[in-house]
Parts: sequence; C-alpha cells; structure tokens
Amino acid sequence: MPHHSDDPPRRVAGAVPRVTELVTADIRFPTSRELDGSDAMNPDPDYSAAYVILRTDAGDGHEGHGFAFTIGRGNDVQVAAIETLRPYVVGRPLAELLDDLGGFSRDLIGDSQLRWLGPEKGVMHMAISAVVNAAWDLKAKRAGQPLWQLLAEMSPERIVDLVDFRYLGDALTREEALEILHRAVPGRAERVETLRAQGYPAYTTSPGWLGYDDAKLARLCREAVADGFGQIKLKVGADVEDDVRRLRIARATVGPDIRIAVDANQRWEVAEAISWMSRLAEFDPHWIEEPTSPDEVLGHAAIRAAIAPVKVATGEHVQNRIVFKQLLQAGAIDFLQLDACRVGGVNENIAILLLAAKFGVPVCPHAGGVGLCELVRHLSMFDYVAVSGTLQDRVIEYVDHLHEHFVDPVVIERGAYRAPTAPGFSATMHPASIDTYRYPDGLFWIADRAAELAETHVGAAS
Amino acid sequence: MPHHSDDPPRRVAGAVPRVTELVTADIRFPTSRELDGSDAMNPDPDYSAAYVILRTDAGDGHEGHGFAFTIGRGNDVQVAAIETLRPYVVGRPLAELLDDLGGFSRDLIGDSQLRWLGPEKGVMHMAISAVVNAAWDLKAKRAGQPLWQLLAEMSPERIVDLVDFRYLGDALTREEALEILHRAVPGRAERVETLRAQGYPAYTTSPGWLGYDDAKLARLCREAVADGFGQIKLKVGADVEDDVRRLRIARATVGPDIRIAVDANQRWEVAEAISWMSRLAEFDPHWIEEPTSPDEVLGHAAIRAAIAPVKVATGEHVQNRIVFKQLLQAGAIDFLQLDACRVGGVNENIAILLLAAKFGVPVCPHAGGVGLCELVRHLSMFDYVAVSGTLQDRVIEYVDHLHEHFVDPVVIERGAYRAPTAPGFSATMHPASIDTYRYPDGLFWIADRAAELAETHVGAAS
Repeated sequence: MPHHSDDPPRRVAGAVPRVTELVTADIRFPTSRELDGSDAMNPDPDYSAAYVILRTDAGDGHEGHGFAFTIGRGNDVQVAAIETLRPYVVGRPLAELLDDLGGFSRDLIGDSQLRWLGPEKGVMHMAISAVVNAAWDLKAKRAGQPLWQLLAEMSPERIVDLVDFRYLGDALTREEALEILHRAVPGRAERVETLRAQGYPAYTTSPGWLGYDDAKLARLCREAVADGFGQIKLKVGADVEDDVRRLRIARATVGPDIRIAVDANQRWEVAEAISWMSRLAEFDPHWIEEPTSPDEVLGHAAIRAAIAPVKVATGEHVQNRIVFKQLLQAGAIDFLQLDACRVGGVNENIAILLLAAKFGVPVCPHAGGVGLCELVRHLSMFDYVAVSGTLQDRVIEYVDHLHEHFVDPVVIERGAYRAPTAPGFSATMHPASIDTYRYPDGLFWIADRAAELAETHVGAAS
Repeated sequence: MPHHSDDPPRRVAGAVPRVTELVTADIRFPTSRELDGSDAMNPDPDYSAAYVILRTDAGDGHEGHGFAFTIGRGNDVQVAAIETLRPYVVGRPLAELLDDLGGFSRDLIGDSQLRWLGPEKGVMHMAISAVVNAAWDLKAKRAGQPLWQLLAEMSPERIVDLVDFRYLGDALTREEALEILHRAVPGRAERVETLRAQGYPAYTTSPGWLGYDDAKLARLCREAVADGFGQIKLKVGADVEDDVRRLRIARATVGPDIRIAVDANQRWEVAEAISWMSRLAEFDPHWIEEPTSPDEVLGHAAIRAAIAPVKVATGEHVQNRIVFKQLLQAGAIDFLQLDACRVGGVNENIAILLLAAKFGVPVCPHAGGVGLCELVRHLSMFDYVAVSGTLQDRVIEYVDHLHEHFVDPVVIERGAYRAPTAPGFSATMHPASIDTYRYPDGLFWIADRAAELAETHVGAAS
C-alpha cells in the first residue's frame, strides 16, 4: 500500500508556493517469469521501482517524479528509506528548493543520523537519488524543458555549484571542473543540433540474457544488426563452455564489424576473470563488464592490466563518486558506466561526468531495468553538449523492457536514442501502470494471488 | 511498534525443533541531549539499535538476540531490512541452521534480489549482521559457552567453513587461512588462561567527545589514567585551533607515556588530513582514525605515507571484507578497526581477522554506541586465542555508555576487558530497557512527547 503524507495544506493567499506532499509507491513488475534480465548473478529479477512523487501548491499542475530501481525483494525497504527524507522536502519553499538543488542534495546527504546508514552507499543513497531526481524532474517540467537541455544551457559556474566536491580534492577541484566546462562552451549549439538530427548512439543488451536459448540468441543478434545497432552485449560468467558457444554463435551472426561486449555481473575472482577472458578472447570482445566485485578498485586495475587489449567497464553497482574517482586514479577502467539511480542522483552524476572528463574516460551509462533508459539519455546528452563535448567511443545501453509504462518513453532510431523533447526527466509512469503493479495491492498482484489460490484448490481436488 | 510474525506454531510431537519467530524492535536512546558521542561528523547522535530476537520451539528457553547499531533517524529502515530476512529464518530446522552458520550467512548474502540493495554494504548488510549475530548468540547460549570460547575451541577446518572467501582469492585462500589457524593451535589453552587472569587491553574514548568543555576533558583524562588505561582517544577535525588546545590539555594531563589516539570521523580531504596532522604532530598522537572517507583505499594509503610515524586506523564504517582486503593490500592502514554490526556479522568478521593476520596488521575494534563493547570483546578474544595469537599493539575501544541496558554488560578492570563467562554473544538487552526506549511507543518516548506538549501549552499560555 502506498504511504501518504497528511492531506496537502491549502495554500494561504500570498504565501510562497511550497512542496506539500511526498508520496511513495512500491511498484514491482513480474519480469522473472520470462527470464528477461537473467544473468549469472541475478537469475530471476522482478524489476521494481521504489517510486516517489513530489506535489506542490504552486497551482501549475506539475509534479516531480523519481524512483530507485531494485530487482524485487527489498523494494519495500527502499520505499521506507525514501520516507525518512520527507522532512527535508515537505513544507520547503519551492523557489528555495529548485534554485539550489546543489544545496538540497548536500542537505539530504549530510543528515548526520541517516548518514550512518551508508555513508553515501546502498539503500539510503539510492533513496536520496530518487528524491533528488524527482526534484530535478519538477524543476525541468516547470522550466518547460527536457532535463538534458536545461542542464546544457546552464553556465559553467551554475553547474559546478551543483556538485559536492567533498572527497574529490585529490583528483578534481572546483577550478578544474570549471575549466573543463568552459572548454566545452564553444560548440554547445552545434552539438545540440547534432543530437536533434542523429540522436545518441546506443547498444543493445536484448539478445544476451543467459535464460535465452541459442536460437533466440541468434535471432535477436540478427535483429539487432538489422535495427542498426553497432554494438551488442552478452551476459557471461555462469559456465565457460556455454559462454564460448554463445559468443561463437553471436560473432558468426553479427560478423566482424559489430562490437560484442560481455558482462559477468560480478561473478569472478580476479584470477578467474583473467583466465575466463583468455578463453573468450578469440571472439574479439569489446569490453568485459563487471568482471568482479564493484568494490574492487585494485582488482579491476589488475584485471585491466592483464587482459588488454580487451577493455574493462564497470559502474552500475559502484556506490558513489569516491569509488569512481579511485577507479579512475588507479587506471582500472576503460569505460565508466554510471547509473541514474544508484549514486545520489543528478548532482552526483554531474560530479562523475566531470571526473570522467578529467581522466579522459568515456561514459557509457548502465540502463535497462525500470526506467533507467528513460533517465540516462538525459545525462549522456548533457555530457556531450556541455562536458566531454564528444560522442567518441560513447554508447548508452538499451534494453527493450517496460518502456510502455512511461509517459515519455525512449525512442530508438537506427541504433540511436532520439533526443527527448518533453519537459522533465522522463521519470513519470502512467497512473494505470502504478495502480496495476503496486505491490502487494495492485491489480496484477491481487489477480496473481487469486490465480495461485485457485490452482492450489484445483490441485487439492484432483 | 515492534513487528511480530504470526503466533508461533506449536511443535508437533516428533518433529524437529525449528525457529518459530523473528521479532524486531526499533530502540532509540536520547543520547543527543547530553552530547555524549558528539564528534566532528555526528553532532547529535541518538544511539539506537535495530533489534532482533529469534525464538524456537526447542523448549530450552533460549533465544538468539542481535542488533544493528545506528545513531537515530533511519533506525526504522534498518528494522524493515531485517524483516525482509524472515523467510530465511522462520521455519528453518534449528540443527541445520546452527550446525552450518557459514551456509546460513552465505544464504542471506546470496539472495539475488536483496543483493541488489548493496551488494554487501549499507542497510541491507547491517541487517544481515543483526540476524547472523543473533543466530550465533543462540548457538552459544545452547552450547552453554560465551561466544569467544565457543569459537576458540573450534578446529581450524570448522572455522574456515564459516568464511565466505568470495572476492578474497587474490589475498587470502582457504589454504592460507587454514595455515594461519593451525599455527595458532599450540598455546590456545595458555592464552585462554591469560585472558581469564588479565583480560584484554582497552582504551577509552570517554574523555574525548567534542561537546565536552576543557575542564571536563582534563578531569576525564585524569580519571582515565587513574583507572589504569594506557591509551585514550580524542575527537578532532572540526577546528584545528580547538584541536591543538584540547590535545595540549590532554597531553599535559596524561603525561608522555599514555598513548593519545585522535579521530577525525571522516571529516577531511586527503591533503587536509596531511596538513592538519602536521599541526597535531607535536603532541605525539598514536594514530589518526578515519582521516577521510571510509571508501578511500588510495586516499588512506596516501595519508599514511605522508604522516608516518603517526599511524593510520580505520574500519568502523568500512562496508565489507573486500574493502578491508584492499586497505591491507595497498598498505593503507596500521590498525584495522572492525565493527561487530556493520559487516555481515561474526562470519565476515572472522574473514577480516584472518585477512589482518595474513598482513600482520593488529585489529583494534571499534566499540561504543549501543552494545558494541559487549560484542567486540568476543571477537578480539577469539582472535587472540585462535587467530593472531598475540596481544601486541592490540586494544579494544571502550566507552562507558548504555551498558546498564545489557544483561551481560562489559566489565573493565585496570584498563582491560574482563573475559565474559555468560553463555552467548552478550547481545541481550533487559526487557525493561526495550520497553522503555522502543520508538515511538516506548514509555520514555511517550513521556517525552507529553512533556513537550505540556511545555508548548505553558508557552502558549504565558
């Protein structure tokens, strides 16, 4: 059941507009039944969202939507964590909130008691991400702009004000960040035009889930090439002989010019990653993603040194900017895969984009799940226009799941993400989707339990 | 309000005993009102416990108690995370559970959906810690032994079965762990006698909280020396001139032979830590604790290299064995400060003790908070008897708060922890303490709100 704050106060005449409500919902999709999303670490995910809506008394009808992505059990814990942030949001004057989202983000991260639950990692940090992203969604909707464009039009000075430089001092100062952003000011307008004309390059993970049989793998590989993707990705790491067979099929199907990335979802020890990848090297893999624990700065560095020219990518489970900073300092990764919902939201992702630019490492965001594709396109497009200034070696992951639940879903054309034009951060789900998949009281889950009960009775009777 | 599972099933005659209940409670102590526990990062902690009780139908009256320690807000989120683990516990045959706590621990950590919320960090990992520790408490109570002794009498083979070696392969193998443990078998009995006669050395943090004035600091320093402590600790990091003044007072009070550790609670950047410590060097600090983010492997290594001979300690916020492993591999710490409740409980702490032994780094546990002193003494005593085999440079933190709430509280004599003799892991709180400080419905909190309400009315009337 969703948690409601008290009824929204009516706005007093002459008073400034404020945030009046923070509403949460535990939304779970039964994806495990199709083995969509199955990999070596996550055999049966139920893609879920701990969803949050911010409402105001501004009278403009705009709401801020955001969410943390989880894969099923524990989504209620994530919702409970979001609820703890209500005092920072409800009652806050809207102008104060939206004019200083850097300060807002630092307030949430800086709560000294909640900080103990991390700090800046796991459940509590993902909760902050959901609320910070919802505030950005609200700001962009009120500005009438898609988030990527809102960000890309800000001055370098305003952008660095959004960043928490704490613990980054040995790798990136405010002055260096400003310099990176100023360097990218010339050409912003042309790059916006490029995005509008051509979109942002994507790769597809749809062929590669471990639960699919060989025929489905080959068919989806063919379709990926036909659809214009220049890169696909296969899950690996459960059984090396299976991986060799599946990579052989994939390479034979797509030919030598399509990039094939592989993804072990953290399954290996350092030495195991090195030896396993030596078995797969003959198929010319583009990168190995998450070869080992996301906490491994030194381990990723050792793997990268051993398996070159195969490249190393990680990030979807990297907890915050501090670990990303060290991965870059240690020369541990070739590609940085930021996630829209794991670190502290838009603000921390701007810090991460700046770090990557400083070290010259391309950002290729993690997507898929619930709504991650919808969000990360905004971050990558902002990166292209205002930070890195280049598309070189950059691709955004694309997975064709669950987009139908979003009001402003991604559109892929010829292997590229089209630039979104609707105002906001594209986090808003259709109300019918929320009502249907709310756990445990949404229509789908009620019907599901009823069907299970009926089956039990038939079984008992026969 | 505490959450109850359904009423316990009555045990069917002839059936094996099982765990019948997992009961949680959100317990919060109003410590912020006395500025106990105030430091540069945590100005007003309300020391709290997300508490769990495991009950069985074995008919022996034993319960397993455990908890995660937090500092106030968010303790409810921690309780919600513990609740998600119920299906792994309730209904489980007791013998199967208690005979294979290594397997139990791996089951909890391995839940593929809950794992997404970490992995192995933050709220979800601390929840696992509470439940794993409760199972160990139950096992030790049923065996009629204090936990340290139960562990210290196990064979090396049984001890390594408790450890999850995943992601440790590049630093510690099962074979190396066995070798460390076999090396410590001779002399176990003598070391048990030493502990019973002399206890385990402690140091005290009680003088050093930032909220105390200079007179209180000096008085508590004198008392610490009079009580037989060979080491004290002061909080630093808010204001360097204050720190210089307070350290001058402390050094003048305790003389040159008492060790003074200092603790910055993560306040600094890398360069800031180095320059700040150069200001404090004249007072001969023993170690600097948590100079920067607990996620900083490379940062701690840089600080350690720069400030020698002052030593570096960290660990109370280090999320798991994988980060500890890297701190050791990178030569980043002189002292490893394990925490009983932050990593995945007893099992992961055994892995951490073995890693520290492998790298020759002394373990000096973090304690204080709620019940941490009660728990960590068992881990250090096990370490001395069966792992490291030495007390050299080892001390357990001691803070004299909140022990009165525990059934088997710590006893300090002449600056040392006396070896506990009561069966179990000493995690059990008095029922009256739970009833009084349960949040928000315990007697203390009800009375507190009533008093606040009364004051508001008086204020309105005057």
